[in-house]
Amino acid sequence: MAAKPAKERLTEAAFALFAERGYEQTTVDDITDRAGVGRTTFFRTFRTKEDVIFPDHEVLLGAIETRLAGSTDRTALIAVTEAARLVLRHYLAEGERAVTRYRLTRSVPALRDREIAGVQQYQRLFRRFLHGWMGGGADTALRAELMAGAVVSAHNHVLRRWLRGRSDDPEAEFDAAMTETVDLFNRSREDAGASIVVVRTSKDLDTVLPELHRLLGSG
Amino acid sequence: MAAKPAKERLTEAAFALFAERGYEQTTVDDITDRAGVGRTTFFRTFRTKEDVIFPDHEVLLGAIETRLAGSTDRTALIAVTEAARLVLRHYLAEGERAVTRYRLTRSVPALRDREIAGVQQYQRLFRRFLHGWMGGGADTALRAELMAGAVVSAHNHVLRRWLRGRSDDPEAEFDAAMTETVDLFNRSREDAGASIVVVRTSKDLDTVLPELHRLLGSG
Repeated sequence: MAAKPAKERLTEAAFALFAERGYEQTTVDDITDRAGVGRTTFFRTFRTKEDVIFPDHEVLLGAIETRLAGSTDRTALIAVTEAARLVLRHYLAEGERAVTRYRLTRSVPALRDREIAGVQQYQRLFRRFLHGWMGGGADTALRAELMAGAVVSAHNHVLRRWLRGRSDDPEAEFDAAMTETVDLFNRSREDAGASIVVVRTSKDLDTVLPELHRLLGSG
Repeated sequence: MAAKPAKERLTEAAFALFAERGYEQTTVDDITDRAGVGRTTFFRTFRTKEDVIFPDHEVLLGAIETRLAGSTDRTALIAVTEAARLVLRHYLAEGERAVTRYRLTRSVPALRDREIAGVQQYQRLFRRFLHGWMGGGADTALRAELMAGAVVSAHNHVLRRWLRGRSDDPEAEFDAAMTETVDLFNRSREDAGASIVVVRTSKDLDTVLPELHRLLGSG
């Protein structure tokens, strides 16, 4: 069997030590000793001890950027949804390691702050692409921000349920959550050349719909 | 003139020193020396040096909670909007100090992470109340999260524009941003006892609206 790469050995050692002794009680030297890897290699691989908790963060950011860069404004919400799915699948594939990380980020303030900052990086990336696809003007900046925030919130909502052991089918929940999210924005999109008329009525719909169609239908 | 409270003296001294020497180069001792206040008082007032940057964070969280606790599900989105306005007005009233903080949070990673974590606290508070007003069930959890996230994003969008000197009338921009945000969710809410009719038309609206009102209006 080929030796595991240093990054994987360091990550495994760190997660094992954090579970055994706690995060604060584990030093970088403890991790490198356990992994059989030098201190220099550690700091070539990770900037800080906190980073070991999120070993694939940069890789995921890169994968998201690649996915988004391959899309256009015509498929903006689908592209962002699929990019968020990359993150979800990564966590699902990690399995127990993702659950351990969740426990750690909930109990160690420095790791929680680090995680929140990481989520912000995803969100900024989504916003940048969404805003670009909308033309990048000041009039669409808020909408891009709201979309990016909603997609990230929906992703985190599903991921958190799975991490807490409350979801048997996170992929299906992700589909449902993203549908709810995308609907929010699609409903409020105006098609060029047509107005969307929203009126509220307490009248019987079957009675008024034929007249409505006559009134508004293209003809 | 009465002496300023220790908290205000410490905050003033800290902001002045951060501007003069930089955040990292300023120690807690530097701050207490400049403020003429003892170290013990500093740590009774703030937990860490980072906290001096956000001296009113806990006060604002408390004010938001009080505002939300006085509301009900009938006025949920208004309550959350007004609570967010409390935060905006606080920053506007701070003036130059808010701008200095913005510069610091953009250049010092520890302060940026601290700020992001603080924003998360607002968002969790909003989510908790919104979700409670919706009944607190699993079926509304995502909607509450999306609403809370959207209100916070819209607030931050306006605040950031003002901090960058790009907004002459942040209160008016806040109104517009909140209208856009609330619309997103109101459009997808179904009123009991009334149907919402959404139809698309390319006809001239001024021409068809009187007929529409006749057709659907209560009467």
